[in-house]
Amino acid sequence: MNDPLENWADQVRAGDVRAISRAMSAIENRSSEAEALLKYLFPHTGRAFRIGVTGAPGTGKSTLVDQMAAFYRRQGKTVGIIAVDPSSPFTGGAILGDRIRMQRHAGDNGIFIRSMATRGYLGGLAQATGDATLLLDAAGKDVILIETVGVGQGEIEVVRLADCTLVVLVPGMGDDVQNLKAGLMEIGDIFVLNKSDREEAGRFEQQLLAILELVPARNGWKPPVVRMVATANQGTDALAHQIDLFRKHQAGATDRGARELVYWKEWLLRLLQGRLIERTLGNHTSEAEFDRMVSEVAARKKDPYAAVNEILARSKRD
Amino acid sequence: MNDPLENWADQVRAGDVRAISRAMSAIENRSSEAEALLKYLFPHTGRAFRIGVTGAPGTGKSTLVDQMAAFYRRQGKTVGIIAVDPSSPFTGGAILGDRIRMQRHAGDNGIFIRSMATRGYLGGLAQATGDATLLLDAAGKDVILIETVGVGQGEIEVVRLADCTLVVLVPGMGDDVQNLKAGLMEIGDIFVLNKSDREEAGRFEQQLLAILELVPARNGWKPPVVRMVATANQGTDALAHQIDLFRKHQAGATDRGARELVYWKEWLLRLLQGRLIERTLGNHTSEAEFDRMVSEVAARKKDPYAAVNEILARSKRD
Repeated sequence: MNDPLENWADQVRAGDVRAISRAMSAIENRSSEAEALLKYLFPHTGRAFRIGVTGAPGTGKSTLVDQMAAFYRRQGKTVGIIAVDPSSPFTGGAILGDRIRMQRHAGDNGIFIRSMATRGYLGGLAQATGDATLLLDAAGKDVILIETVGVGQGEIEVVRLADCTLVVLVPGMGDDVQNLKAGLMEIGDIFVLNKSDREEAGRFEQQLLAILELVPARNGWKPPVVRMVATANQGTDALAHQIDLFRKHQAGATDRGARELVYWKEWLLRLLQGRLIERTLGNHTSEAEFDRMVSEVAARKKDPYAAVNEILARSKRD
Repeated sequence: MNDPLENWADQVRAGDVRAISRAMSAIENRSSEAEALLKYLFPHTGRAFRIGVTGAPGTGKSTLVDQMAAFYRRQGKTVGIIAVDPSSPFTGGAILGDRIRMQRHAGDNGIFIRSMATRGYLGGLAQATGDATLLLDAAGKDVILIETVGVGQGEIEVVRLADCTLVVLVPGMGDDVQNLKAGLMEIGDIFVLNKSDREEAGRFEQQLLAILELVPARNGWKPPVVRMVATANQGTDALAHQIDLFRKHQAGATDRGARELVYWKEWLLRLLQGRLIERTLGNHTSEAEFDRMVSEVAARKKDPYAAVNEILARSKRD
């Protein structure tokens, strides 16, 4: 008899949509099944090219991601899309969004779309997204698009999982400034100026190029700016071309092995921290209790060491 | 008989230099004494104003910090200086630097200077710096200057401990670009253009102002640029004035209570994570063993879950 997990893993590797969906749910629920499954799948990962897509809400990231997915499908490549929303609770909203997007690619088994959201106060979304990326990688997807809903610290952590990061900007969103949130300039490998048919696009592009002039090249790569009108599928080829150039640049970079080690070191530490925090805090101290401790510390009624020792003592009780 | 720790705490609170120095060493060594002492001191913290100073090496941060310290001393305020270097190992270098700096303020008991460096691969420098800040706060220092040696992720985490962050830039350091490293634009409450007697200063200031134009105001504060020549003590008063304006702005901000809670929530989580990682990894898995696991995972010879479970299992053995 085969191990049922091994069967499941085989189905995932064969690209079976239901098997992949079940695995995604297991990852979201942080079930022990997910880990057991991923152990089977892990040796078969490392092939997919992961593209992170970030930018403020309203910049048209979803449309852009869909156009990119369609482009790669026309090239005969299989595609996975993970839409990540650190801010929203785990609700039907994400699922509804998936259904709408799925309809655009209805009947195409070569594309898999899934939303992920945060549950609880302990984070862990970057970890879940990382696991989902491994899953789609093992499922044979050639390209994985990881799309964030907003731009915050959580999102930046998520796109660090990618091989190539696109930052999507839009000219004249109320104030141009809106688009240039914390850390964005530094994480972009390619900048996409979406909705570039707008009147203000030229001026905005000049500003953007001037700022990028000031950002140091990383390993000899100067981030280019690609003009797009995603809704009209304009600029998709140019963007795909830049992604391809970046991919070749990275493949030839001398620091590739070192980057892989940094990547997995961070992954292991994050996984370990998540496990420890979950075990210690999640199982024994509720969010309300934790928040109460924080308030007491802020009011100098309890010292931080006492608070942490209290949390640690609780977790030892069982 | 008095508890010797309570005596020690009383000496620290009275500003006794030797008692503070011993406590600093205890914090650096992560001894259990440090925690016990800080428990006594914590209720007496929350008075000091913490100023973070960051910028690339060679921008003259130490000189600037010394001028600021002298300025506050002239105002009759007591000052603590913590110089943080996440990159350098814990060597005599830091201590030598302290001695040289101490000589400038020789015989002044109202100023306390200490360098802190990282030891080991598990980080914890932000935590140690936080503890050191609490210590100097309880010791009655009115102003605490937290100075980083470089600009990296570690340094940015360190200056987040501050109430007000100064980013120090210098025109024409080889390429102007060098000064605008990751995240710098976003963390600065005040930008200091040091060595502003240089020829290129005007052009650089214009560039800087243009970039700051694009950064959104945080709670109604637009970061100003202050021109300085720290070596000639030019601009010190203007900088102190801007710091004072920022302090008043912060004191009046409506989100003050909420910011305090975020601050302490992060602190508690970081402390808890540090404790857990130290206990789990530090005591049972050497850096070499951990690096070997990372290599095996990167080579797909071991899956990350197995690696983490191995680490967790080791820590349970005792």
